[in-house]
Amino acid sequence: MKKALVVYSGGLDTTVIIPVLKAEGYDEVHTVTVDVGQPASDIAQAAERAAILGAVHTTIDAKKEFAEDYCTVAMAMNADYFGYPLSTSIARPLIAKKAAEVALEKGPFDAVVHGCTGKGNDQFRLEFGLRLHVPHIPIKAPVRERNWTRSEEIEYAEKVGAPIGQSKDKIWSIDENLWGRSIEGGRLEEPNFAPPEEIFQWTASPLHAPDEPQTVIVDFQHGKPVALNGQELDSLSLITLANQLAGHNGIGRIDMMEDRMIGMKVRENYECPGATLLIRAHKELEGYVVTGAERKFKALVDQQWAELAYCGLWGDPLFDDLVAFSNQIQKRVTGKVWLQLYKGSLTVTGRESPYGLYSEAIASFDDSTTFSQSAMEGMVKAHGLSSLIYARLKE
Amino acid sequence: MKKALVVYSGGLDTTVIIPVLKAEGYDEVHTVTVDVGQPASDIAQAAERAAILGAVHTTIDAKKEFAEDYCTVAMAMNADYFGYPLSTSIARPLIAKKAAEVALEKGPFDAVVHGCTGKGNDQFRLEFGLRLHVPHIPIKAPVRERNWTRSEEIEYAEKVGAPIGQSKDKIWSIDENLWGRSIEGGRLEEPNFAPPEEIFQWTASPLHAPDEPQTVIVDFQHGKPVALNGQELDSLSLITLANQLAGHNGIGRIDMMEDRMIGMKVRENYECPGATLLIRAHKELEGYVVTGAERKFKALVDQQWAELAYCGLWGDPLFDDLVAFSNQIQKRVTGKVWLQLYKGSLTVTGRESPYGLYSEAIASFDDSTTFSQSAMEGMVKAHGLSSLIYARLKE
Amino acid sequence: MKKALVVYSGGLDTTVIIPVLKAEGYDEVHTVTVDVGQPASDIAQAAERAAILGAVHTTIDAKKEFAEDYCTVAMAMNADYFGYPLSTSIARPLIAKKAAEVALEKGPFDAVVHGCTGKGNDQFRLEFGLRLHVPHIPIKAPVRERNWTRSEEIEYAEKVGAPIGQSKDKIWSIDENLWGRSIEGGRLEEPNFAPPEEIFQWTASPLHAPDEPQTVIVDFQHGKPVALNGQELDSLSLITLANQLAGHNGIGRIDMMEDRMIGMKVRENYECPGATLLIRAHKELEGYVVTGAERKFKALVDQQWAELAYCGLWGDPLFDDLVAFSNQIQKRVTGKVWLQLYKGSLTVTGRESPYGLYSEAIASFDDSTTFSQSAMEGMVKAHGLSSLIYARLKE
Amino acid sequence: MKKALVVYSGGLDTTVIIPVLKAEGYDEVHTVTVDVGQPASDIAQAAERAAILGAVHTTIDAKKEFAEDYCTVAMAMNADYFGYPLSTSIARPLIAKKAAEVALEKGPFDAVVHGCTGKGNDQFRLEFGLRLHVPHIPIKAPVRERNWTRSEEIEYAEKVGAPIGQSKDKIWSIDENLWGRSIEGGRLEEPNFAPPEEIFQWTASPLHAPDEPQTVIVDFQHGKPVALNGQELDSLSLITLANQLAGHNGIGRIDMMEDRMIGMKVRENYECPGATLLIRAHKELEGYVVTGAERKFKALVDQQWAELAYCGLWGDPLFDDLVAFSNQIQKRVTGKVWLQLYKGSLTVTGRESPYGLYSEAIASFDDSTTFSQSAMEGMVKAHGLSSLIYARLKE
Repeated sequence: MKKALVVYSGGLDTTVIIPVLKAEGYDEVHTVTVDVGQPASDIAQAAERAAILGAVHTTIDAKKEFAEDYCTVAMAMNADYFGYPLSTSIARPLIAKKAAEVALEKGPFDAVVHGCTGKGNDQFRLEFGLRLHVPHIPIKAPVRERNWTRSEEIEYAEKVGAPIGQSKDKIWSIDENLWGRSIEGGRLEEPNFAPPEEIFQWTASPLHAPDEPQTVIVDFQHGKPVALNGQELDSLSLITLANQLAGHNGIGRIDMMEDRMIGMKVRENYECPGATLLIRAHKELEGYVVTGAERKFKALVDQQWAELAYCGLWGDPLFDDLVAFSNQIQKRVTGKVWLQLYKGSLTVTGRESPYGLYSEAIASFDDSTTFSQSAMEGMVKAHGLSSLIYARLKE
Repeated sequence: MKKALVVYSGGLDTTVIIPVLKAEGYDEVHTVTVDVGQPASDIAQAAERAAILGAVHTTIDAKKEFAEDYCTVAMAMNADYFGYPLSTSIARPLIAKKAAEVALEKGPFDAVVHGCTGKGNDQFRLEFGLRLHVPHIPIKAPVRERNWTRSEEIEYAEKVGAPIGQSKDKIWSIDENLWGRSIEGGRLEEPNFAPPEEIFQWTASPLHAPDEPQTVIVDFQHGKPVALNGQELDSLSLITLANQLAGHNGIGRIDMMEDRMIGMKVRENYECPGATLLIRAHKELEGYVVTGAERKFKALVDQQWAELAYCGLWGDPLFDDLVAFSNQIQKRVTGKVWLQLYKGSLTVTGRESPYGLYSEAIASFDDSTTFSQSAMEGMVKAHGLSSLIYARLKE
Repeated sequence: MKKALVVYSGGLDTTVIIPVLKAEGYDEVHTVTVDVGQPASDIAQAAERAAILGAVHTTIDAKKEFAEDYCTVAMAMNADYFGYPLSTSIARPLIAKKAAEVALEKGPFDAVVHGCTGKGNDQFRLEFGLRLHVPHIPIKAPVRERNWTRSEEIEYAEKVGAPIGQSKDKIWSIDENLWGRSIEGGRLEEPNFAPPEEIFQWTASPLHAPDEPQTVIVDFQHGKPVALNGQELDSLSLITLANQLAGHNGIGRIDMMEDRMIGMKVRENYECPGATLLIRAHKELEGYVVTGAERKFKALVDQQWAELAYCGLWGDPLFDDLVAFSNQIQKRVTGKVWLQLYKGSLTVTGRESPYGLYSEAIASFDDSTTFSQSAMEGMVKAHGLSSLIYARLKE
Repeated sequence: MKKALVVYSGGLDTTVIIPVLKAEGYDEVHTVTVDVGQPASDIAQAAERAAILGAVHTTIDAKKEFAEDYCTVAMAMNADYFGYPLSTSIARPLIAKKAAEVALEKGPFDAVVHGCTGKGNDQFRLEFGLRLHVPHIPIKAPVRERNWTRSEEIEYAEKVGAPIGQSKDKIWSIDENLWGRSIEGGRLEEPNFAPPEEIFQWTASPLHAPDEPQTVIVDFQHGKPVALNGQELDSLSLITLANQLAGHNGIGRIDMMEDRMIGMKVRENYECPGATLLIRAHKELEGYVVTGAERKFKALVDQQWAELAYCGLWGDPLFDDLVAFSNQIQKRVTGKVWLQLYKGSLTVTGRESPYGLYSEAIASFDDSTTFSQSAMEGMVKAHGLSSLIYARLKE
């Protein structure tokens, strides 16, 4: 008896592969949907469609783990892949890990199956995670194998009577989790097509956001946000609330040209209100407690981390090395940041930390025992010394 | 007969040094004010005060050169020192250069003199520029030599009757040029003191900015902006207009913790509306025409350039090497960027370039002759290969 | 009539594909061998075997172009991929370019064909070059398509009577060009198998190298070596002589673990005597004329360039940007370097340049008008200031 | 009663300051010499001269701590400041720390005093360490304050009858510790003066080194060498033996242009036989166990660390962050490296580790279940994709 486990979202790509697997001779098809903050209706739809197609379905609520172990790391690394806070990217490794757990628990399986096409990043992220956690189970990607286009998928689904419902009329392709929402497809791919208001669900239009600015105070303990406006919250509740507050004020829309893993440039639209707010706050506080040299090097570390995270490489050795570097810093990222949210603009207005490197005495040079201005003469003379020697040589 | 040339702003620090020099036996004191976009009243005040103090005054209009040769380079390098577009920083080398020209023309001088204190960055920037261009003339910094505080300067000025007028009642210390405006002093130094509305002169409060969003289109030719909303403009006019448009919409206020050259952290407030708008537009277009690998490396180049520019090192060999790298890229930074300005928020809504690396055929994988999805299998398998070998070893 | 062009080395992999193509229905098979410094016997053998197999053969002497336009760039970039001077890597793009020229001249062709297997780097390098120069011609890789092992290739060759002669008895797989020689295969793949003396052809064993040290003086003009021991030479002659001198003294053997493009680690052995000598000399002179900050950043540029060169990406935009950075520096890399060669050790004993940034006056602080030691106090106090503030905070 | 503590080497610079301090009114002068591996005669001479001058002397044996906590870190970071393994640099922070301990134990002191001039790096390193550990004690640098040249120091010493013995006839200025030896002064400062044989004490001339090659096997546990040729040794003994073995075979002479902290370039000669051997072995093993991406990033981390270490910044936050990154890697740096030492040349001939990322199965692609060569086609096609799009655009 052949058994397959499908990493299942309930959307078109993953739904069509259930009948495909049956046609290929799999006797038992299991489906697993990992809840990382999608809409409840998506979770329900997945269960429903799986049932219709005769698959054994499992739903796993991984929201808390996602918030604690993934979003929190992303914040510490100031997640930024050329403007994108890596919302979809950081969920894939967790989905793979949870699916692998189901594979081990309900197995043995002859294949673990995903619906990714061959053009995107998710095939890399998901398969890496699966190979990491269940290296012994073969991976199948039926849509990619068949080189199917969307319309070929719909045609097949209709032929076999798969329940794809309104999926086929969707203009936009959406991916959603606690850390953000991506909207792709149709004319949005054109680099100079202004995104229509209808694609946004989490963020108010700045034009229709409240007329009064809203102040938000974020409290951090060792690099992790622990309270919003004074209210102590666990990571999941805090990120959820941050999404509401920032989204309500029109903050977190991202429109960018993105360089995909296989080297092509695509236009992407995201809305990541909570991520935008929390990363901004974290970066501000971090910048307050680190030295100038740390700040410069942490920027390199963050850039390298973002690249690995974009590629879904949680569990990669370099990933862990970079996090070890960051953890050494996060010990000091404790304190408060004040921000003002207003019609799409996000402004820091204050920061406070027991580890803040601002020293009133030194900044104002008041304490004459510390520093005499005149002592600076030599340093100023030495500034750019080699450039000056160079300039003299040129003459 | 001893002659000194004072790099003169007309403010307190530089005004007090004229009587100091006379007291030190300089028979003839020249003053030079370099106009890089300060308020006209400042320029006039400098001339006036110099006259009162019996100095031979020269005003040099360097606005065009500043716009063409300094601001344009800053744009190409996406000028960003941890959030600061380097407004004051990039003006100092030009001021030094222009002052050096006067020193050569009206000399010989026994000293070239500046009013910088020993706590800031400007002493490094100005002296480097002076040593670069007039290495044979000794440099004096009377305020630094005397280790004077502000109140000691005022006391001295009053004693000798120097015209410091309202300077002594100023709460804020302002520096202003075409590329931006900095506001320091008083309670603004406290990291968690929210800046009062009164310190801003170039930017409307987002709360009072127009209720309608404004669209701006920036046209670039080889990395340089050449038109705003379709109107072709020289660099000076274009930056001036960008300041107005962005400032009118509440864009360009910057509140940050900054790491100074001598290793101390200070809180700074800037308003740089035009710089914010133009750098954002440039970065967007550049990101559209470069490869992913270029984008990553350009970020390093920009960071290193920002550090040199912050230190005032125009004329340094590495500075020129980095610009050579960038120039190779700017050849392709030609096209248009659409932005929306609204109550403090700045959003890109489109980009267009003959060099844009977006390829509809490739992005959509439509052209089956180009790419078959199924061909991706091996690449996906190879993804993270060394991490997977590592993981296997750990077991 | 179907025509194919084979990028031909005359070895086993490329020889077997001629009968394969005939079997696949190609009526006319052309072969092109690009001479980048292989042994003359290899060049002759290629022509011979092509004739036997009825292919239309072309030999192109690209040695001068390789020396001038490839090896010279590698020197300027201090070619170093974790110890490997990129000898094979930098030849592949030129071979592809020359083959593309033949394809255009003798075409039209229905396919351009190479013999690379699917495990190495060369498939990436060659195909990139071909796609760059003749994007319209389909590429075929018969050995990779068939997933052939070496023994399957030999079996096929013998079946069809292809002239593979002693190829089948070879233990080592050799690649050779002006810039170096690589030796792979058999037990050499084992990370702790000491390479036997027999694999080396260009370098004397240090144990049998001359008992007297030999001094070599290299003269550079703008980053390019122009004379050896006072004798002016063109690039090709100079590199050839450098190979002899260094090889004679046992210099240039490299034994390393290398990270291949698809993420696997392999053990490699190279002998690159001339490259080792010339890069060492170049790096020394460059280090003498650049500022400390340039030296640090050039190291990053070199590392990034090495990665692109390893991947065969000549013609890539970032490649050109990095070279533009370097060219700005090479203007000053003019002067002489003295080296001592002795039984495998290579020692620099002197360097001289009109652009050398060493200044006797400044280094010895003799010129008291330039620098007073006591002026250093402030700079020393400011050193590590932020670390000290941090330390005070911790208490 | 005024008390001063002199960080004392027993050489000219530090000896003259004892009478200086007495002349300045210090009633009690203490001296402390920290033994980090100088010649025993230097240690004895310091005690003797201190006694003659009436100072209260303390000698501290810090060799074990230096080996364990400083040299071992340097190895893990592959200590390399443009060719220099940072021998003098890494000893200064420990000397400062030990002197600070004496200052606390035998104090209170009114000043802690060093003999550094104003031209070198050591003033920065020592004072940073002192400010870090005893921030409350003022620091004095009498030679720097007086702007003394060497001959002025000798003149003063002779006038006051200080015991400077043969110090005044020394041509070379030597600094020596367990990690290496530096030789400066006289004609050695000239960039093209070949160093005379007499300056070397730890290394045989390659020309007179043994005629038989010597094999050395280094065993590492978690990044730390624990055995040499199978003999388990503590860090101090191991480094001592490594110095002997490598020095005996003419390994470890370094002749370089170095960029000092205040921006001037100087010529330096070092002999660091043990450091050269151990760092080479460590780097080899590390390169065997890390992924390619880790190797690239570790190179950046090492470069940044070398810069901080050169500046003496042990205790700086970034220093600790970089070490945290490295520690994550060192966990896997366990295994053996085989090296051959012969007349100045050092060759790795094998490496072995339970964490080595070399996989025979993957490297040889034998395991057809793992990888089919033909699966590589898509990855090869995608290689340089954005460059190819760029190339097409240019047409």
